[in-house]
Amino acid sequence: MPLMTGEQYIESLRKLKTKVFVFGERVENFVDHPMIRPSINSVAMTYELAHDPQYEDLMTATSNLTGNKVNRFCHLHQNTGDLIKKVKMQRLLGQKTASCFQRCVGMDAFNSIWSTTYEIDKKHGTHYHENFRKYLEYVQENDLTIDGAMTDPKGDRSLAPSQQEDPDMFVHIVEKREDGIVVRGAKAHQTGSINSHEHLIMPTIAMKEDDKAFAVSFAVPSDAEGVFMIYGRQSCDTRKLEKNADIDLGNKNFGGQEALVVFDDVFIPWDKVFLCEEYEFAGVLVERFAGYHRQSYGGCKVGVGDVLIGAAAVAAEYNGASKASHIKDKLIEMTHLNETLYCCGIACSAEGYPTEAGNYQIDMLLANVCKQNVTRFPYEIGRLAEDIAGGLMVTMPSQADFDSEEIGSYCHKYFKGNGKVSTENRMRILRFIENMCLGSSAVGYRTESMHGAGSPQAQRIMIARQSNIEHKKELAKNIAGIKE
Amino acid sequence: MPLMTGEQYIESLRKLKTKVFVFGERVENFVDHPMIRPSINSVAMTYELAHDPQYEDLMTATSNLTGNKVNRFCHLHQNTGDLIKKVKMQRLLGQKTASCFQRCVGMDAFNSIWSTTYEIDKKHGTHYHENFRKYLEYVQENDLTIDGAMTDPKGDRSLAPSQQEDPDMFVHIVEKREDGIVVRGAKAHQTGSINSHEHLIMPTIAMKEDDKAFAVSFAVPSDAEGVFMIYGRQSCDTRKLEKNADIDLGNKNFGGQEALVVFDDVFIPWDKVFLCEEYEFAGVLVERFAGYHRQSYGGCKVGVGDVLIGAAAVAAEYNGASKASHIKDKLIEMTHLNETLYCCGIACSAEGYPTEAGNYQIDMLLANVCKQNVTRFPYEIGRLAEDIAGGLMVTMPSQADFDSEEIGSYCHKYFKGNGKVSTENRMRILRFIENMCLGSSAVGYRTESMHGAGSPQAQRIMIARQSNIEHKKELAKNIAGIKE
Amino acid sequence: MPLMTGEQYIESLRKLKTKVFVFGERVENFVDHPMIRPSINSVAMTYELAHDPQYEDLMTATSNLTGNKVNRFCHLHQNTGDLIKKVKMQRLLGQKTASCFQRCVGMDAFNSIWSTTYEIDKKHGTHYHENFRKYLEYVQENDLTIDGAMTDPKGDRSLAPSQQEDPDMFVHIVEKREDGIVVRGAKAHQTGSINSHEHLIMPTIAMKEDDKAFAVSFAVPSDAEGVFMIYGRQSCDTRKLEKNADIDLGNKNFGGQEALVVFDDVFIPWDKVFLCEEYEFAGVLVERFAGYHRQSYGGCKVGVGDVLIGAAAVAAEYNGASKASHIKDKLIEMTHLNETLYCCGIACSAEGYPTEAGNYQIDMLLANVCKQNVTRFPYEIGRLAEDIAGGLMVTMPSQADFDSEEIGSYCHKYFKGNGKVSTENRMRILRFIENMCLGSSAVGYRTESMHGAGSPQAQRIMIARQSNIEHKKELAKNIAGIKE
Amino acid sequence: MPLMTGEQYIESLRKLKTKVFVFGERVENFVDHPMIRPSINSVAMTYELAHDPQYEDLMTATSNLTGNKVNRFCHLHQNTGDLIKKVKMQRLLGQKTASCFQRCVGMDAFNSIWSTTYEIDKKHGTHYHENFRKYLEYVQENDLTIDGAMTDPKGDRSLAPSQQEDPDMFVHIVEKREDGIVVRGAKAHQTGSINSHEHLIMPTIAMKEDDKAFAVSFAVPSDAEGVFMIYGRQSCDTRKLEKNADIDLGNKNFGGQEALVVFDDVFIPWDKVFLCEEYEFAGVLVERFAGYHRQSYGGCKVGVGDVLIGAAAVAAEYNGASKASHIKDKLIEMTHLNETLYCCGIACSAEGYPTEAGNYQIDMLLANVCKQNVTRFPYEIGRLAEDIAGGLMVTMPSQADFDSEEIGSYCHKYFKGNGKVSTENRMRILRFIENMCLGSSAVGYRTESMHGAGSPQAQRIMIARQSNIEHKKELAKNIAGIKE
Repeated sequence: MPLMTGEQYIESLRKLKTKVFVFGERVENFVDHPMIRPSINSVAMTYELAHDPQYEDLMTATSNLTGNKVNRFCHLHQNTGDLIKKVKMQRLLGQKTASCFQRCVGMDAFNSIWSTTYEIDKKHGTHYHENFRKYLEYVQENDLTIDGAMTDPKGDRSLAPSQQEDPDMFVHIVEKREDGIVVRGAKAHQTGSINSHEHLIMPTIAMKEDDKAFAVSFAVPSDAEGVFMIYGRQSCDTRKLEKNADIDLGNKNFGGQEALVVFDDVFIPWDKVFLCEEYEFAGVLVERFAGYHRQSYGGCKVGVGDVLIGAAAVAAEYNGASKASHIKDKLIEMTHLNETLYCCGIACSAEGYPTEAGNYQIDMLLANVCKQNVTRFPYEIGRLAEDIAGGLMVTMPSQADFDSEEIGSYCHKYFKGNGKVSTENRMRILRFIENMCLGSSAVGYRTESMHGAGSPQAQRIMIARQSNIEHKKELAKNIAGIKE
Repeated sequence: MPLMTGEQYIESLRKLKTKVFVFGERVENFVDHPMIRPSINSVAMTYELAHDPQYEDLMTATSNLTGNKVNRFCHLHQNTGDLIKKVKMQRLLGQKTASCFQRCVGMDAFNSIWSTTYEIDKKHGTHYHENFRKYLEYVQENDLTIDGAMTDPKGDRSLAPSQQEDPDMFVHIVEKREDGIVVRGAKAHQTGSINSHEHLIMPTIAMKEDDKAFAVSFAVPSDAEGVFMIYGRQSCDTRKLEKNADIDLGNKNFGGQEALVVFDDVFIPWDKVFLCEEYEFAGVLVERFAGYHRQSYGGCKVGVGDVLIGAAAVAAEYNGASKASHIKDKLIEMTHLNETLYCCGIACSAEGYPTEAGNYQIDMLLANVCKQNVTRFPYEIGRLAEDIAGGLMVTMPSQADFDSEEIGSYCHKYFKGNGKVSTENRMRILRFIENMCLGSSAVGYRTESMHGAGSPQAQRIMIARQSNIEHKKELAKNIAGIKE
Repeated sequence: MPLMTGEQYIESLRKLKTKVFVFGERVENFVDHPMIRPSINSVAMTYELAHDPQYEDLMTATSNLTGNKVNRFCHLHQNTGDLIKKVKMQRLLGQKTASCFQRCVGMDAFNSIWSTTYEIDKKHGTHYHENFRKYLEYVQENDLTIDGAMTDPKGDRSLAPSQQEDPDMFVHIVEKREDGIVVRGAKAHQTGSINSHEHLIMPTIAMKEDDKAFAVSFAVPSDAEGVFMIYGRQSCDTRKLEKNADIDLGNKNFGGQEALVVFDDVFIPWDKVFLCEEYEFAGVLVERFAGYHRQSYGGCKVGVGDVLIGAAAVAAEYNGASKASHIKDKLIEMTHLNETLYCCGIACSAEGYPTEAGNYQIDMLLANVCKQNVTRFPYEIGRLAEDIAGGLMVTMPSQADFDSEEIGSYCHKYFKGNGKVSTENRMRILRFIENMCLGSSAVGYRTESMHGAGSPQAQRIMIARQSNIEHKKELAKNIAGIKE
Repeated sequence: MPLMTGEQYIESLRKLKTKVFVFGERVENFVDHPMIRPSINSVAMTYELAHDPQYEDLMTATSNLTGNKVNRFCHLHQNTGDLIKKVKMQRLLGQKTASCFQRCVGMDAFNSIWSTTYEIDKKHGTHYHENFRKYLEYVQENDLTIDGAMTDPKGDRSLAPSQQEDPDMFVHIVEKREDGIVVRGAKAHQTGSINSHEHLIMPTIAMKEDDKAFAVSFAVPSDAEGVFMIYGRQSCDTRKLEKNADIDLGNKNFGGQEALVVFDDVFIPWDKVFLCEEYEFAGVLVERFAGYHRQSYGGCKVGVGDVLIGAAAVAAEYNGASKASHIKDKLIEMTHLNETLYCCGIACSAEGYPTEAGNYQIDMLLANVCKQNVTRFPYEIGRLAEDIAGGLMVTMPSQADFDSEEIGSYCHKYFKGNGKVSTENRMRILRFIENMCLGSSAVGYRTESMHGAGSPQAQRIMIARQSNIEHKKELAKNIAGIKE
């Protein structure tokens, strides 16, 4: 099957019997649900741009498995050039959607499972790598979107998986059968789950022998028996349900979302199992996936930042303030911060190196540095955007007011800024900034920048571990003439 | 009339025929409108606490006009002690409402009009000060909430009021009659307007002779002929309209809001006029009001910050992370930043000085420094709160999911954290943090901190003007031994 | 004896037989030693300004002990007004010296020992408070400079005083005699010790019963038998020894210094002892002294900052860049940060309260917040000063080059900036900034801001302890509707 | 001639008759001058490491001109790999010297003149590129150190070169002769000039036709007739002249320096001229050189930062504080900031592209972002180092005190920290940190980070110019649904 178009992707979702709950109710047609559809559109963009010759080099790659042209989101990185193109593709998609396009977790899972299964098999004589190769060929050939799922609910964080009162707090094997395994548990904070064809489950922390029932990785279709998803409620979510609110939405077409994915005794055939009790590899897998995913943020959030910087510049112009030196300086600062993030994304890619299995890994220290900056700079970029936008961003009336026969004329009259700009356009750009800073996209741009791919402290631990402080101490002792 | 209770205040609003539009429709009973009521409750708190003996010293004062006990919000500051108590009262109210309680603009307007009218009369032989004294006695005796209204829509910001294509872009005198004046225009960003008994209008910028028709200050009841208000739409506003969403709201009882107040040829009798064409005093009035209001932010936002810091500490405990050193350190940093804001609020008060008219003015440099910090630190406090809260804040299902027969048990199971804490309480504290960082209170805590009482650059201009850089240059030349 | 003049103060030092070592050698005449004299001049300024009518209100006070007019540095704070004047006096002196004037530690020691001895006597029936009253009267009447000395060398920081291998790591009682005690140990980081008439020793940490021999406070003259001081070497110290380097010095007249004060079995008569083994008061005394001293930094460093801001403005002018918007903005930012520090100094003073002994204590939380900011902002102010100054600050030739017959003309030619400014004046202002940012005053402005009155973490611990986080948690639970 | 050793390099300097003035006096033997020698040692390290097989890949390259192995400092970048290796080589040298090794300006000049002369010749039919190729072959074959010199004194910054009162404020052509040109002027802030064999002069700003006499680029030996240098005085410079101060120096072996290079009617033969009056290329050359040099800072300062981080870790250990969580966190923060700089250095290299002349150019936007961060983070890294080091860094006695018979034992006793560490070693590491933060290396680590390769505002202007804000505005309008 060739690369799907955006439309084909959306149609392919309709064929799934994915079970989704929103506000406590089962949603029959999730594809057309107005709260869900914008996030589907974001994923669809990953398909559409792959057909645009202008972006072909970024959006597609030649599979090392089949030799066919595949969507880069399904690709195993073959060199540092691939790692860099990944980041550029993510920046591009951030620019086109101003939101999370969700397909990166699959790509990051593919690359980390690929190298880890190779190493497991080498040690244990298992066949996970072969299983995974076949699975990935299937994914590439069918151009699927896969939810790489890692985070368990975790329950009491001071206890290991095997020590939890409720063992379901971590996805685990409840039965090993001849034809496969049965698993139970849930994965939280799953951004792309609803819009994915399948899920690729990984453990969430390093494990010891007692936890071996929790050391499990597998693939499962979104509509498999026993799988269902509960929609997370977010800022301004129901604004999408309103009629005649397309201006108020700020970003009418695109968006993100989150869900809890529940696995209620789900059967997984052996050929879709990629880790089963080899607990000592859980930590390796987590670290690699987290590393790739921390790299990702140096691309996607930069692209979203580009749009926000552009919006601030437009707002400044519409407010008649674009020539003020402090405004220009704030736009420079936003750009500077945004490009610093990009530098981190590019650097950890350029410093990548091959794994034993042949695909390329990012530089772990720099990828963690990348994500750590992402937990800071988007907040400052957002703060500066709010500064430039002005208070009107949060005080202006609704679209319904502007459309009202009784008071619409007053709205149009009093919210006119620069004479050459329509009041509607001024509203549109301010509502977009609201959407990014406080509204539904703020979740993706701010909170997800904070906690996605691991919270800030997780990166600090990795930075400490990777920093080779003993070498630095030797350097200092040499220079200072210290002999111990 | 004695001090009103909160309930009496709410009843007093019912008696007004205030004209309010929400989503393009006239609201008949604004007092019970679920989007508006929380902000009324916030104002009501300024009445209720005045009856609590514990807070009497902060909440009330002895009027220098009548000798009666009045709500401090209606008081003219008689010394630096009053200025400091103002800040403490504001911190207290921030702590009790976690939102904007709106009554400060009135107090700040009283104090700036009091001293300015004294000086106008002295120069021009007018009677504005006497007018205002009577008006203020009426306000004090009736314990009214007054919307001190300054910000005009401004149209093209590069043009003076008299140069605008549409003169209504600034409130102005359209007719001078024997019995009073007729005014037209609008005031934007009016936080407390809907919940106020009256409005106290002031000009918004310094003016020159050509602009004298725009140099006008007056009082007008909320339900005067020709006055109406258009509600501003904000993040998560309609969540307040949902049934069974009290947990999802985060802060069910209190909130803020914004409105545009339109003056459509409104008649003002002479005894309610406090400035009429004496254009050279417009700038003085603006600067004083802005100064008082920049002081205010060193109280109210600190109180709100206290609640957010407390919420982060509760969330850390519920997440089982309260003993992690990085969590403790983040709480210290939040406290440090919050108390730095408080220091600025206190300092500009302690350094206050008497005006010619006898009431006390804050230190202008330090008040601007105060507000400038408020444009920064709440964003960082919020960022740290989001860090501590964890991703669940934006990924957890709605209250309806938790209450659902079909999936509620899954929600309760998988979102349980620390075993001793109910899932509901965990949700509550996270929803509160969401409300403060992204939701409806984020407007008050973040964007209002940015733009309220003037945007950041306005403070920087004042800091430059007040910093006496020439004196500092002399100090440096003396030390460096420079003779020019 | 009346208030001494600066000259009288300097003469009074000559009468002492203070034992000082510099570069391993005993200095016979420390008063005229070119490395030491600038720091004596700084202290002398505290005497000189007390005679200037313009500053009388800040520099002097009426003693509550004698009713006489005394230098404020010898005064017990009688109200919050005194606390605020202390901060203003410190800012003034910072402005006049651009360095540390050293006399604050005495004042801070007086006020903390005064209230603590009162409480010890109340509990133990001792007579320390009476001893101290007499001592302080003597200090006031003779207008002395006293080194309030707290910091011990501490040895292994993980061990209590009584657990140290070498007990001398903390000053301690080696003998109790009928007529007094004999003490041994040292005090490190003593900024004003060499220039003081006497030392007022205090313990440096909270203590337990085992440490009671280390719980000791007393007064001792600088030239008492067994007392000597070792000079600390600092950046650019020997530039002061050069001939013809007055331009290169940047600040020719004023400076700071540090010394180790050794107590080698020194006898202290009982009437000069203020704490002797009542170990449970060691912590109280430390906390109070630290509190007062953390307040101090909200005055002195602000004054020094004023000079640096002024110097940056002069440098900008001499470089011909004073109209560039980014330069103006940087000066605003420097001012903003500096005044934020001042706000903290003023606020912890305005929020002061009486001790049981009657003198006034600062607000402990805000004083710690004050000092915490001082560990940050002077570094940023300095960074901005270096930015404005330009690279010439560290690349320009020495005064000797400018004076050279062979190459002086080239120096004058090529380092001419703005045509109206002499090259010498340009050098002077840049050398002053060098002095503040890298040179001998950088120690006082930067490193002392970091570690003086306790290192940053010490303040964070106090902020945590004083922040009443439980109250904040209750506020949050109330608002969020949490019932536990 | 093969690659020189460090020793050979030093000997080669002795053969030059370079004219250097220090403190107004001609220095006869600059190579052994104790203030100058440490900076020569830093350059020598660029020779020594080229012979170490471990570093061969970084330190050497194959010349595209001759096919011979050359020191990378003499190399034209052939691909992005070369650009990345440049940054890594610089980090390595920063680690080995903890100071500026000065040879980068030559390399950056080679690469920018190479591509610019190619383009001039193409337009004007001149022979500069051929001239330069021959010159560079000579440099490579003789393994020379070249001072790439750009910054003129500039005089009145508001005037163009041709408008200056004194034309010598910019290096210019005073005579065009058959055999060559005669130039006059000076280059300021020349870090490596004294230690270079030759100078490679470039214009310092974009120029117009009137300035064509100032549009000149050429090579000249350090000891050419009419060339001389005046040494810049820096923090703690004379400490290097003291006997027995090797501990006090902190970094005994290595250091930096600055000088003014004067060209007093110097003759340049035509074959050493690379630009002569083609004014429209002055700006291109400046921009390219600045770009390469801004990249450089993402390598060298990172290496120096590594040593400072290591020193802080050693100091923490010696102070017995290495296990405190706040210390560990500060080390992580220092590492995070340092690696962020590295990311920028790597990223602008990885994103490099070929010039018309065939060598590789860095990404201009990211190189400017790199340098902008360098104007900030080293200051914060230094601040954290001072925090960790503790106050002793600036209060401890001199080496002479420790060595003194009379008081040495007291010094050793009282400055002992952790029992397992010698007091001398503790002193050594603290003196090193002093050297980096306040002492002679602070000039290189802090002020040079600020102003080297252009002051911060220069980068902001380039960031604005390179940011393609119009494209970002289009992105925002598309998302927000704006049609104009």
